[in-house]
Amino acid sequence: MRPDVEFAVWASERQQRIESVLGRMLGTEALAAGPLADAMRYAALGGGKRMRPLLAYAAGECVGADPDVVDAPAAAVELIHAYSLVHDDLPCMDDDVLRRGRPTTHVAFGEAMALLAGDALQALAFGVLAGSGMPDPGRACLLLADAAGSHGMAGGQAIDLAVTGSSLALGELTTMHRLKTGALIDAAVRLGALSRGALAVDVERALAGYAAAAGLAFQVVDDVLDVEGTAESLGKTAGKDAAQGKPTFVTLMGLAAARAHAEALRLDAHAALAPLGAAGARLGELADWITRRSH
Amino acid sequence: MRPDVEFAVWASERQQRIESVLGRMLGTEALAAGPLADAMRYAALGGGKRMRPLLAYAAGECVGADPDVVDAPAAAVELIHAYSLVHDDLPCMDDDVLRRGRPTTHVAFGEAMALLAGDALQALAFGVLAGSGMPDPGRACLLLADAAGSHGMAGGQAIDLAVTGSSLALGELTTMHRLKTGALIDAAVRLGALSRGALAVDVERALAGYAAAAGLAFQVVDDVLDVEGTAESLGKTAGKDAAQGKPTFVTLMGLAAARAHAEALRLDAHAALAPLGAAGARLGELADWITRRSH
Repeated sequence: MRPDVEFAVWASERQQRIESVLGRMLGTEALAAGPLADAMRYAALGGGKRMRPLLAYAAGECVGADPDVVDAPAAAVELIHAYSLVHDDLPCMDDDVLRRGRPTTHVAFGEAMALLAGDALQALAFGVLAGSGMPDPGRACLLLADAAGSHGMAGGQAIDLAVTGSSLALGELTTMHRLKTGALIDAAVRLGALSRGALAVDVERALAGYAAAAGLAFQVVDDVLDVEGTAESLGKTAGKDAAQGKPTFVTLMGLAAARAHAEALRLDAHAALAPLGAAGARLGELADWITRRSH
Repeated sequence: MRPDVEFAVWASERQQRIESVLGRMLGTEALAAGPLADAMRYAALGGGKRMRPLLAYAAGECVGADPDVVDAPAAAVELIHAYSLVHDDLPCMDDDVLRRGRPTTHVAFGEAMALLAGDALQALAFGVLAGSGMPDPGRACLLLADAAGSHGMAGGQAIDLAVTGSSLALGELTTMHRLKTGALIDAAVRLGALSRGALAVDVERALAGYAAAAGLAFQVVDDVLDVEGTAESLGKTAGKDAAQGKPTFVTLMGLAAARAHAEALRLDAHAALAPLGAAGARLGELADWITRRSH
């Protein structure tokens, strides 16, 4: 099988796997029935690239973890991601009506129910991790809390709010994205690997370097696609960032330089994986996929 | 010392203690600086009855737990409570402008920052618990996740949304409150006691019975005070539930019967504690305080 086809099969299998895992966790029997459960399922099921779960599965495979154990961290990071999208799309934040080609959760269920669905998805993420078969669920929850909270994703979103309409240096933009999207991507990689147990120092260093480069590459590509893409290809409103006066890698660097920056970060991700040898190959392919995607 | 004075001193000492613990957790050095950290501190510090932390400390004392260990669950349940108030007060939910005698968080910091502050406070609650010295932080996080999520607080809030303006039987109202406020009160009691380690079956049963009765008593008294109180004594808008057409224990039972129901629940809480003997005395006093408060 051609390597790119083999990777596509691997990714598709895991995308189906996480859909099924999330479906089980969000099944009607496991949740209070009614509109809250419906809104949670609407927000978390049936779409998305599932990049964070793929990173968790690949990191788990890298250290030889049991995929059945990796299901929990893969789901937990995706639940955090799903909740953040629901809250991000609310009128008081980005006020977006289209996500993954469908009406956003608050358009479909009302603002109040969307707010609660996001809140409940965050709680569920911690519950999934805490109740998992991971060797140290407490440590896993601590890592996820740091990645999701004011040191991580929420902190990055707060910076994003503050800088809309203002100018920003490239270093500040990078710091914002390291928090806003990078922290959760780092958590996906680390938690996937921690499914096997505590990590050797050199493995931890390799994975952290990889996650930092791949996470930033993801964001740079996002900014490029926001300019190049259409709503149809993206499944969300295109050209949104520029319209809202948000600083992006494209507005700060120009389109060609932003593309080159993404490519450099892709190579950084591969370089960071070098100490892991062949075990890191899948993570390398994921870095390629992240950088070369068209949506 | 008179028993009521002794209790007041005990409560005041622990209210000061949790204020200091939360202040440390929300200190500028521990959080990203800026408006997000300010909004989190505004929402969580400087007010409130601290009922949930008091329940955690009392439950911890009941089983002989080290108060330094109980600090974490006491703070975690209060952080969840604080986040829920911030989100509850948002315009898309209760749209309230006054809380604890001050402008609500979104009035002071804007809706977007209030939304993020609530999100980050929830993550911090899990981080505090996961990084605590509790014997089983993973189990503690699982318990908190169940209490906060769609099986618990968020699930109760969703029912609350759905029933506004509609009629409800007393049993349904009770179910809603068992989720909306009861689940977190139950978590406060259990987590306080779990600071010592796993509980004997009879202790667990006694604490669960106590928490169910005291939690419901709290809500019935809340409904009574919403009718009887003034904004000045409550520190929040009075008569709000009735104005919003929400079913309450007072609208369903009448004022006198609701008062009698609260008193019966107070006695239920004491009865549930009986197997614990003298060790349960402080929790009994807390049930009295919850039922007889004027705000």
